[in-house]
Amino acid sequence: MINITLPDGAVRKYENGVSAFDIAKSISEGLARKIIAAQVNGEVWDISRPIQNDASLKLLTFIDNEGRTTFWHSSAHLMAEAVEQLYPGVKFWVGPAVDNGFYYDMDLGDHKLAEEDLQALEKKMNELARQNNKFERKEIRKEEAINYFTEKGDQYKLDLLQNLQDGEITFYSQGSFTDLCRGPHIPHTGLIKAIKLTNIAGAYWKGDEKNKQLIRVYGVTFPSQKEMDEHLAMLEEAKKRDHRKLGKELGIYTMDDDVGPGLPLWLPNGTIIIEELEKLAKETETDGGYKRVVTPHIAKENLYLTSGHLPYYEDSMYPPMELEGVKYYLKAMNCPHHHKIFAAEPKSYKDLPFRLAEYGTCYRYEQSGELFGLMRVRCLHMNDAHIYCTKEQFYEEFKAVNDMYRKYFKIFGIDKYVMRLSLHDPAKRGKKYVDEPELWKETELLVRDVLIKTETPFVEVQDEAAFYGPKIDVQIWSAIGREFTLATNQVDFAQGRSFNLSYTTANNQSDTPLIIHRAPLGTHERFIGFLLEHYAGKFPVWLAPVQVKLLPISDKYLDYAKTILQKLKKADIRAEIDDRNEKIGKKIRDTEMLKVPYMLVVGEKEMNEEKVAVRRQGKGVTGVQFVEEFINATRNEIMERKD
Amino acid sequence: MINITLPDGAVRKYENGVSAFDIAKSISEGLARKIIAAQVNGEVWDISRPIQNDASLKLLTFIDNEGRTTFWHSSAHLMAEAVEQLYPGVKFWVGPAVDNGFYYDMDLGDHKLAEEDLQALEKKMNELARQNNKFERKEIRKEEAINYFTEKGDQYKLDLLQNLQDGEITFYSQGSFTDLCRGPHIPHTGLIKAIKLTNIAGAYWKGDEKNKQLIRVYGVTFPSQKEMDEHLAMLEEAKKRDHRKLGKELGIYTMDDDVGPGLPLWLPNGTIIIEELEKLAKETETDGGYKRVVTPHIAKENLYLTSGHLPYYEDSMYPPMELEGVKYYLKAMNCPHHHKIFAAEPKSYKDLPFRLAEYGTCYRYEQSGELFGLMRVRCLHMNDAHIYCTKEQFYEEFKAVNDMYRKYFKIFGIDKYVMRLSLHDPAKRGKKYVDEPELWKETELLVRDVLIKTETPFVEVQDEAAFYGPKIDVQIWSAIGREFTLATNQVDFAQGRSFNLSYTTANNQSDTPLIIHRAPLGTHERFIGFLLEHYAGKFPVWLAPVQVKLLPISDKYLDYAKTILQKLKKADIRAEIDDRNEKIGKKIRDTEMLKVPYMLVVGEKEMNEEKVAVRRQGKGVTGVQFVEEFINATRNEIMERKD
Repeated sequence: MINITLPDGAVRKYENGVSAFDIAKSISEGLARKIIAAQVNGEVWDISRPIQNDASLKLLTFIDNEGRTTFWHSSAHLMAEAVEQLYPGVKFWVGPAVDNGFYYDMDLGDHKLAEEDLQALEKKMNELARQNNKFERKEIRKEEAINYFTEKGDQYKLDLLQNLQDGEITFYSQGSFTDLCRGPHIPHTGLIKAIKLTNIAGAYWKGDEKNKQLIRVYGVTFPSQKEMDEHLAMLEEAKKRDHRKLGKELGIYTMDDDVGPGLPLWLPNGTIIIEELEKLAKETETDGGYKRVVTPHIAKENLYLTSGHLPYYEDSMYPPMELEGVKYYLKAMNCPHHHKIFAAEPKSYKDLPFRLAEYGTCYRYEQSGELFGLMRVRCLHMNDAHIYCTKEQFYEEFKAVNDMYRKYFKIFGIDKYVMRLSLHDPAKRGKKYVDEPELWKETELLVRDVLIKTETPFVEVQDEAAFYGPKIDVQIWSAIGREFTLATNQVDFAQGRSFNLSYTTANNQSDTPLIIHRAPLGTHERFIGFLLEHYAGKFPVWLAPVQVKLLPISDKYLDYAKTILQKLKKADIRAEIDDRNEKIGKKIRDTEMLKVPYMLVVGEKEMNEEKVAVRRQGKGVTGVQFVEEFINATRNEIMERKD
Repeated sequence: MINITLPDGAVRKYENGVSAFDIAKSISEGLARKIIAAQVNGEVWDISRPIQNDASLKLLTFIDNEGRTTFWHSSAHLMAEAVEQLYPGVKFWVGPAVDNGFYYDMDLGDHKLAEEDLQALEKKMNELARQNNKFERKEIRKEEAINYFTEKGDQYKLDLLQNLQDGEITFYSQGSFTDLCRGPHIPHTGLIKAIKLTNIAGAYWKGDEKNKQLIRVYGVTFPSQKEMDEHLAMLEEAKKRDHRKLGKELGIYTMDDDVGPGLPLWLPNGTIIIEELEKLAKETETDGGYKRVVTPHIAKENLYLTSGHLPYYEDSMYPPMELEGVKYYLKAMNCPHHHKIFAAEPKSYKDLPFRLAEYGTCYRYEQSGELFGLMRVRCLHMNDAHIYCTKEQFYEEFKAVNDMYRKYFKIFGIDKYVMRLSLHDPAKRGKKYVDEPELWKETELLVRDVLIKTETPFVEVQDEAAFYGPKIDVQIWSAIGREFTLATNQVDFAQGRSFNLSYTTANNQSDTPLIIHRAPLGTHERFIGFLLEHYAGKFPVWLAPVQVKLLPISDKYLDYAKTILQKLKKADIRAEIDDRNEKIGKKIRDTEMLKVPYMLVVGEKEMNEEKVAVRRQGKGVTGVQFVEEFINATRNEIMERKD
């Protein structure tokens, strides 16, 4: 018998060689029908694979990231099967799952695939899916694998085989199709109920433009048509809410070739949003007992050698500037500078927790091809802070950070979020992770403990920790259900030692503080990109670049509008007058386009009564109010940061 | 007869060959006794030198920068004469005037000059000064000059002669001493009434440590003992107010070897001051109709080639980072980024004036040896803005900027200031200055016109303009009378063209805007350095990092102190409690040291009456107040930014 530990901590006993599917069935038949893969000791497995030793087990369905990834990876195999049946002789390169589906790169010889061909392919895939063909895993010797693909004449797979050894080669087959594949896969094709091939693109073999261009077909699949419909509707809506489109229309940011890729220039409207976010963060952090600091954007190489970012992180940094024989780097993170501030003056236990906050601007190198609007940039304005505390203070500090995240989620109407707890891989200590076995164990336990005790929704992932400690990535969903990775929250037991940070304990000993790295609002770049989509550009009043637009019906009421403008400005409400010589209907339409929350129409009646006719963006007239009344209500809405 | 134009615009006629001294005498005998040099067509001359053509003339006394420089340069010659008499055979390198006096570098052979020797030197200088020896100018042929110094055996002067040609070589003699010197000099040594030699240092010949080390003697002189006494008292006070000393004591900033020289890390207290200054600037700029933007700290080489900063300014920039075959530079100024924002959306005359403001952080390369605390750094947080306007709008815009400067001077209690208008040198167009003769003329007139019409105190200097237009440097004096160059205000008629910036005029034509670069608060680095000295660290309440310190007489009153703390925090007053187990006397003394403006002592009586005993830093007890009363008064003091 072996012990199987389930995610809730329950331990069940099973026969040696039991499969995840058997275990699911032993729990519920309904569950067994839905599971598509299983996490065994943190690794994703086929559900039919026998478990031989004690293990932790998580059953995965389509709602789990890893389940979805498996589902889409299997769908790529299904597509390959369909392609092979329709285009015999096709050769395959790789076919992974991606963020929103999957693709497969293939060599169709002289055949040029057209959009029309996709329908036939979809049809064939549906046909094959309905055959409920099992995905069968087979371990295979290298020689045999080479023979198979030599016979098939697929030089791409033979190329892949070069880097593999006996013992690590597996084949997966379903129906008539067999692929070299590490797996895992879903149990059978019948789970794939809805199929959509979305795009055809060219892709150079191995990404090298000197190589042959392969055909890449993208697709997406779901366990039900309903989920497919929702997904496509969401994509349609996401297109309308594209932050790059809205960013331009609303004057939020611009990019410029002479400045460089991935380096947004924030226009006046975008800067207002930045400043409102910073104000919120500063208020929140001041209340939380943080102290603010300002540090330079560069530092000597030596600082990053001490921190260990060099050489670990070098590929993600801008190349150095060499000055007077010293290499200076643009900072890719603020922590080393903050550590230096911690160290600038001697500390005692009375100074802890010591919390340093900075909207620090960091620079990271992302490949040109990876850059995407505000979502993937090279310049990052980070809502950063570092908390230096004792182990005894860790729980409260970590909890306070968690509370801060939740406060922000509430303000921004973010209803769905998950904390993704990234743990290290013990096998990679000394390379990808600092070699401190005890500390890894201890801190991973501490972090998990906080998450469980605070009932924070979270998932665990292996081998994605920061190199200096476990980390939490916060995943949030926008109003239309798109997922964003936003912020991080990292524990650090390594840098305190590297920087010789210390404090005097109550017993007059010297000890090293634990460090929490946290950035609840992430970066301006990504967060404002998210907000543009989330609000579809219709920012709540407190964030709106222009909060109120005055629309005089004619020039006759311009002076009255100007007196109101002065009152609004005095009340710190961002307001403008549309003084164009246009009809009121056009003024309203244009202001609606600019997504200004409030429009105040003023004409004869309003002027005589010292009132304004209030229109809410997207909602039409909401009433006629005295000017002071409107100002008070709006001030209140702004102060409370109403959503 | 020739026409001599005086600074007030008056034109007087004199005989051809008249000297500045003759002209001074013709105005007043008293003036003639005080003048020490003259500015003839912008060039500084000996007052005895004959003027042969029509010229503009400014008579210089010790209060003029150029007058003072001449006085101290002549004092260096006087010192050299004294040295030569006491140490025959001495050889001289160079002896210029510097910020606060003068020095001379010399080779005394084997003699090691000691502090004691300075007294004897001063005595000899006084003796020689009282001889009223004339400074006599003599134009000399190169050959003759070489003979003179060959005979004297002074290889240093022979080295200097190498780079000079016939027609540009002059000797100056006074008493027994003759020097190779371009001049000008004061009329005679008798004007030097007070002499102090301040320091002996070593200085490698030509600054190269492979060369011989020469002896550098520093000194300072004045036309009266009274001025010398005031100067020495000011230096003494300045030492106490040294911003590096106060910066450390008050936790304002720190430097770190691993980060790099000239790159301050702003500690929490310094960051509070930064944020208060930024708040002031943002409020003022918002009222002034500025829009805020945020731009990256780097840009491609091409941006700076367009702006012309490369290659003109390359020596002052950090070296490039080469990425994907493109050179990126850290920005040394914000203007090119702002121009790109101006250009991001089409502009019409209705959009002008278009004012973009940013607290942009720039990086400039200053040689390690030049770095000095916060005063000369490599990282500059600039209170920057660029105003794009038409020529018609220029006067009003330039005046508004001037008004802003004056508003700031008032807030910070800066009573003495001078605008230093830097003009270009027509001979250097195409090299040091862009080659646009008409525009130089036009804009220099416009700027001068604004300064005259607004009655702003200003001086004109030749050949110190920015390369793209005339510029104003603002010189201010701290409370103890030390001079600081703070901010600049530049006109730019070149970059608008280089960047193809344009707007559509009312007549539907395309025109290029004029640009004003302005930074009234300069950089945080220099301005906070100035403020530390100006206030001797005793910041007015609105700027003070900790505004109120609560001092409970014993632990018994700690809870009462805590309730007050909450009230203070709620009123946005930065407050702390001294909860140490110390006597109240020590608490007061320690808080005085930290220069916290208000101390609230609370004991039995205060607690019972819900009052606080108020102490003002440096002034002792000022009264007992109800808590609310104190809070209201302090809020008011903060809101009004009282000095």
